[in-house]
Amino acid sequence: MRILILNGPSLNLLGQRETDVYGKLSFEDYLDELIADFTEFEISYFQSNIEGEIIDKLQTANLEFNAIILNAGAYSHTSIAIADAIKAIDTPVIEVHISNIMAREDFRHVSYLAPNCTGSIIGFGLESYRLALLHFR
Amino acid sequence: MRILILNGPSLNLLGQRETDVYGKLSFEDYLDELIADFTEFEISYFQSNIEGEIIDKLQTANLEFNAIILNAGAYSHTSIAIADAIKAIDTPVIEVHISNIMAREDFRHVSYLAPNCTGSIIGFGLESYRLALLHFR
Amino acid sequence: MRILILNGPSLNLLGQRETDVYGKLSFEDYLDELIADFTEFEISYFQSNIEGEIIDKLQTANLEFNAIILNAGAYSHTSIAIADAIKAIDTPVIEVHISNIMAREDFRHVSYLAPNCTGSIIGFGLESYRLALLHFR
Amino acid sequence: MRILILNGPSLNLLGQRETDVYGKLSFEDYLDELIADFTEFEISYFQSNIEGEIIDKLQTANLEFNAIILNAGAYSHTSIAIADAIKAIDTPVIEVHISNIMAREDFRHVSYLAPNCTGSIIGFGLESYRLALLHFR
Amino acid sequence: MRILILNGPSLNLLGQRETDVYGKLSFEDYLDELIADFTEFEISYFQSNIEGEIIDKLQTANLEFNAIILNAGAYSHTSIAIADAIKAIDTPVIEVHISNIMAREDFRHVSYLAPNCTGSIIGFGLESYRLALLHFR
Amino acid sequence: MRILILNGPSLNLLGQRETDVYGKLSFEDYLDELIADFTEFEISYFQSNIEGEIIDKLQTANLEFNAIILNAGAYSHTSIAIADAIKAIDTPVIEVHISNIMAREDFRHVSYLAPNCTGSIIGFGLESYRLALLHFR
Amino acid sequence: MRILILNGPSLNLLGQRETDVYGKLSFEDYLDELIADFTEFEISYFQSNIEGEIIDKLQTANLEFNAIILNAGAYSHTSIAIADAIKAIDTPVIEVHISNIMAREDFRHVSYLAPNCTGSIIGFGLESYRLALLHFR
Amino acid sequence: MRILILNGPSLNLLGQRETDVYGKLSFEDYLDELIADFTEFEISYFQSNIEGEIIDKLQTANLEFNAIILNAGAYSHTSIAIADAIKAIDTPVIEVHISNIMAREDFRHVSYLAPNCTGSIIGFGLESYRLALLHFR
Amino acid sequence: MRILILNGPSLNLLGQRETDVYGKLSFEDYLDELIADFTEFEISYFQSNIEGEIIDKLQTANLEFNAIILNAGAYSHTSIAIADAIKAIDTPVIEVHISNIMAREDFRHVSYLAPNCTGSIIGFGLESYRLALLHFR
Amino acid sequence: MRILILNGPSLNLLGQRETDVYGKLSFEDYLDELIADFTEFEISYFQSNIEGEIIDKLQTANLEFNAIILNAGAYSHTSIAIADAIKAIDTPVIEVHISNIMAREDFRHVSYLAPNCTGSIIGFGLESYRLALLHFR
Amino acid sequence: MRILILNGPSLNLLGQRETDVYGKLSFEDYLDELIADFTEFEISYFQSNIEGEIIDKLQTANLEFNAIILNAGAYSHTSIAIADAIKAIDTPVIEVHISNIMAREDFRHVSYLAPNCTGSIIGFGLESYRLALLHFR
Amino acid sequence: MRILILNGPSLNLLGQRETDVYGKLSFEDYLDELIADFTEFEISYFQSNIEGEIIDKLQTANLEFNAIILNAGAYSHTSIAIADAIKAIDTPVIEVHISNIMAREDFRHVSYLAPNCTGSIIGFGLESYRLALLHFR
Repeated sequence: MRILILNGPSLNLLGQRETDVYGKLSFEDYLDELIADFTEFEISYFQSNIEGEIIDKLQTANLEFNAIILNAGAYSHTSIAIADAIKAIDTPVIEVHISNIMAREDFRHVSYLAPNCTGSIIGFGLESYRLALLHFR
Repeated sequence: MRILILNGPSLNLLGQRETDVYGKLSFEDYLDELIADFTEFEISYFQSNIEGEIIDKLQTANLEFNAIILNAGAYSHTSIAIADAIKAIDTPVIEVHISNIMAREDFRHVSYLAPNCTGSIIGFGLESYRLALLHFR
Repeated sequence: MRILILNGPSLNLLGQRETDVYGKLSFEDYLDELIADFTEFEISYFQSNIEGEIIDKLQTANLEFNAIILNAGAYSHTSIAIADAIKAIDTPVIEVHISNIMAREDFRHVSYLAPNCTGSIIGFGLESYRLALLHFR
Repeated sequence: MRILILNGPSLNLLGQRETDVYGKLSFEDYLDELIADFTEFEISYFQSNIEGEIIDKLQTANLEFNAIILNAGAYSHTSIAIADAIKAIDTPVIEVHISNIMAREDFRHVSYLAPNCTGSIIGFGLESYRLALLHFR
Repeated sequence: MRILILNGPSLNLLGQRETDVYGKLSFEDYLDELIADFTEFEISYFQSNIEGEIIDKLQTANLEFNAIILNAGAYSHTSIAIADAIKAIDTPVIEVHISNIMAREDFRHVSYLAPNCTGSIIGFGLESYRLALLHFR
Repeated sequence: MRILILNGPSLNLLGQRETDVYGKLSFEDYLDELIADFTEFEISYFQSNIEGEIIDKLQTANLEFNAIILNAGAYSHTSIAIADAIKAIDTPVIEVHISNIMAREDFRHVSYLAPNCTGSIIGFGLESYRLALLHFR
Repeated sequence: MRILILNGPSLNLLGQRETDVYGKLSFEDYLDELIADFTEFEISYFQSNIEGEIIDKLQTANLEFNAIILNAGAYSHTSIAIADAIKAIDTPVIEVHISNIMAREDFRHVSYLAPNCTGSIIGFGLESYRLALLHFR
Repeated sequence: MRILILNGPSLNLLGQRETDVYGKLSFEDYLDELIADFTEFEISYFQSNIEGEIIDKLQTANLEFNAIILNAGAYSHTSIAIADAIKAIDTPVIEVHISNIMAREDFRHVSYLAPNCTGSIIGFGLESYRLALLHFR
Repeated sequence: MRILILNGPSLNLLGQRETDVYGKLSFEDYLDELIADFTEFEISYFQSNIEGEIIDKLQTANLEFNAIILNAGAYSHTSIAIADAIKAIDTPVIEVHISNIMAREDFRHVSYLAPNCTGSIIGFGLESYRLALLHFR
Repeated sequence: MRILILNGPSLNLLGQRETDVYGKLSFEDYLDELIADFTEFEISYFQSNIEGEIIDKLQTANLEFNAIILNAGAYSHTSIAIADAIKAIDTPVIEVHISNIMAREDFRHVSYLAPNCTGSIIGFGLESYRLALLHFR
Repeated sequence: MRILILNGPSLNLLGQRETDVYGKLSFEDYLDELIADFTEFEISYFQSNIEGEIIDKLQTANLEFNAIILNAGAYSHTSIAIADAIKAIDTPVIEVHISNIMAREDFRHVSYLAPNCTGSIIGFGLESYRLALLHFR
Repeated sequence: MRILILNGPSLNLLGQRETDVYGKLSFEDYLDELIADFTEFEISYFQSNIEGEIIDKLQTANLEFNAIILNAGAYSHTSIAIADAIKAIDTPVIEVHISNIMAREDFRHVSYLAPNCTGSIIGFGLESYRLALLHFR
């Protein structure tokens, strides 16, 4: 089973920025842990700060992956275009968020993506990704 | 580790009502599966249709359990009182929802509880509970 | 044909409180009149001030009654949980209101219950109940 | 007792249009049934697609009828002018709706007319008219 | 100078309906007083309950009158079409209201017509019309 | 193929009023051009300032025409009744607007009619009608 | 009969500022005209840029004047305190505005004062004051 | 004089939960102080987490007490049903809040109860109850 | 202990204006009673209709008084500037209102001042001031 | 005459995704038809999922094309930046939409682009593009 | 070149109040620095807590100064009257704020003054004034 | 000191587009002036129409520059992602706008970026950039 982890804007700074909110581990280091733990999956990773590149990847992933774990970061709250792309593909998408977006600013309480995703896992720190993978185990 | 699963209004009808939205399995049957799968946990279960009884249970659970998995159903969207009760206790609470509440009516997009919970797992059907338990494994 | 009349908060004070709005007859006295007039029906009556007990009753009534006439009082305007319970059962529910809620405060113009009921009868005083019963004659 | 049934826009198409929502009976055929059932009343009927003609009729009906059963259709949700006309006359007006307007689009949840009517009967199909007549029996 | 007084819905009931709000004088009687007082003007009068007939009259009045005094009643608060008609003609239009619409229901605080009129005179009872005429003396 | 062009309030003033917004050609003159250009269609024309007459025409047109090109003018933004009439008939309706309503006042950005029409053509001046006819060529 | 004309902020600049909106005549010059025309009245004038001084004047005017003509300028749209002062006194107050406030920015469409005034005269330029005086002739 | 102190959800946790907001004293200990200080009153105490039980108590208190001091906690912001119960009884009710609800989340700024209470005392910590009692001394 | 009672706009009319809402006692007479009852305090009094003078007084009071009891009247609902002044000083401020502002117009339900005050006492008539003083006894 | 057809996010999936909404034809195949039908035009095509690349193309197209037919897809509802780019160039832009966006979710009813375009053609399926081309014939 | 620095409510407390937000320097001391640094300008200073005195000063400054640097404090968010005064004068006005008002409460995000000012400089502490002066160097 | 000037969408068209709003100077020419005037700084320049590239640049700039002057154009009003990127880096960012965004469309009054920036300089034309540079002198 091939699974894509797809990260949006500024998630490449994980472990560096706002460590009180997002933790001190870089995503690359965490990814190594996940790959070691889920040897039954073939896990790929892609990150972009560009909304349209996330759409590009969702489209091509449709042919190559069995599932997508998506943390679109701030674009979750503003991008109808990514929401449409999720709806347009067959591969199931799970939305994850590291922080508890419901406990932050009002504009983070809306997710355009959620209605088109299988489900959402919010607020468990980096472990949100692990729970998403466990869904497929 | 002692874990309480706490269900709110009409979740006792699971498997009977609106099976297209909530599935055909009764919660009791599903609970048996969970107990069998998570033998390392001591899992208790409580359901009530009464908002205040859910608050009562949250308060007493505080002394007896290490974690609470809460599906407050429709009260999630209207009950500041339950939200306050979650905040008032020390035991961590995980919010779960069976259906993808973000893909349903507007009034289900708001959760008063979410900001006071550790995290939220939404839309995976009954498996939302399993993912919550996996968080503690 | 078995019919349940189900009354919500403070309707037990009928005939005592705010008689300019709700009239001077107690519901029990009025119920006697209805029972006398509709001898072809087996009419039961239940009142509770507790939102969750109304849900409990809706659930058990599902097995015992052919129809429910519901005046949920103030809960009509705030309770998604009762609305869900109405949707979850098969017995048809008719919403009645004694006063013309559309001519009162803004917050009484919304009914969460109405979309899940067969229909609504509003503003005919206690006669709203009689019109609901006539629907089943 | 003289009773006017007053219908608003597109209700002349009843039985032809959107039969899944409004049923297959024409209003004229249904009216014959009502007249046969309520021989104690002298029932008249008027329909217009023109907002101002409904107001004209309400004004003249004031002198000629003891009661008015009004289904103003879509004008219920937009016409302050009809609401004012109801308030300006002495004859009591009952608002009826065939469909459950509370279960349809948001803009149908508002009725400018309701506050000025005796009461409202909503969602019983054509039987809404019969219940209104029963109010006067 | 030829002046048209143009009245909207239910203003033909003046002196009969809601006399606490609108006074006991019929408009026809009041009109006689105005004609007697303003002999330098040729004053015409037209009333209709039909929005479109008010528009028709505004269009034809454009050729025949030097000024229009318009009380569009409830249509003031809902009719973009009348507002457009006022804008489309050259004859100046003064908006009058008998009652103080700002002291009544919220939905009467908006006037679509006002921005396209020369000015508005509100709340002086029938004398609002006299003040409008005085503007042209 | 029989096509009805149906115009709403104040469109009879085209070429006279607000020529900076709507142009200087009268609709009748423009209609002659259209009839000359689309000889394969039998084109009829109806204009009314009265909302209900537009509804009347939509209903009768349903039996007589294969398509309707509707510019309901200001009623587009306020009339649920016309929207319902469009939905109630089988003949396809195309909404046209001469001016770019999205570049004007906020209250012109809403069209109740659009959801029930085949499509909308907005802002091409009188050529909006021609484009609508081309849809049927 | 003693009448106070009471002007609010920046109306002392009349004739100097924004002459396209407010005209080129200073209020003092215009006042002289009014005094000459209404010799039967004893007309006083007070202007202040300070909200509280307008309230002071309304309170003392209550003892000294038979009527007040008030143009509170921008305070009309923000001052509940002036509205309360008008309500607290017995002397009738007429609200006037020089410009057509309904044709300007949205925040000028609300008047806190209007509900507590006898009536409002809006948009006739300086002649708004004259019409207000004519009301007392 | 018999006075009931009636507390709503989670106020039984006073002195234990969120002591930075609510202080460290349990309500029972504080109650002892009050009873000692106000020997001229017969003070009773009731607490419930259940909205409907608060309504029950308000109804029965009506017969037994001369005054009620009510802290309905989170239900203050959501319960029309409790507001109705206060209105339905004759015993005067004073609303108290321990914390300054106006300085907390937006959803705590609304109180459905306040309009039906004699008055409100907000933000004085537990001393809010003492001030309420002093009102009756 | 030196305490300032600081009153806002139109409170100098107490006992004269709207006596059904505010009572018939002048504030000066009431003040004499308070001074007699609270001989342990040195009570000063200041009233102004001018928003900025209330701010001036709050600033100077900061040096001279131990506590301030503030009824800012209508400015409570509009003045961020007074709210800032309260925040800027060290002397604790208690907000009082004579009438139950929550039972009046919507625009009186908001208080900009409340979040910066120690607490609020609302609706006890003039006794609201006494309760505030009792807080300091 | 050189014309650019410019497509936004996910329109490269046309014919594959959500064929019930968007049809089964790929845009490339449809483009071939258009080119064959409009031999008098030199038609170019560009598609991007990236908002900023659409802006880039609008800027360079300004020098190279006589007209642009733009379907910005989901960006139509969120992109002020594209709207600004349309306004910044001289080449006229026509907005097209395949589906009837007014009959879909609320967030698709807003188009930031429309006010800056010549006109909009909405809901005719792929034929929306053809109608846009016909505008230039 | 003569420049007026005009400060609004509570800015006289600078250096004393909320020093974490506004810094510890008094404005007078800071002013001395500015005067020393900008010897080419004749800098005057005026502060008032009274909205109307700020308007008075803007009006008289119009005759005496070449530029005004205005920090209206809390009045920036509520005063249409000051905004009008800025518009009414010819002297250019620059709006400055010490704190980053966009990072504070929602009600500080609106500035009625900004649209009528040359520009705004926000959030640089007292240096906001210096930057404004540099604009004129 | 190394300073990055970072410009967003369509600012590459400066001097060409909407010269009445943005002026006639190209940014490159203006940049030359700035570099000549601020020889003590090493000034770099980057412009992109792509939201994500602005985020990329903010991230890399964090390592290379001491300060960033950002004009994100239209993205200021829609991009939470850029706001997050500003918050995630240590280099201070100053927001500048050429035009007075507060005097333009409503949707330009919101800046997601402002709360995370040091300060904002708005409306001084290209001189906004110079003032920002002066902040660092």
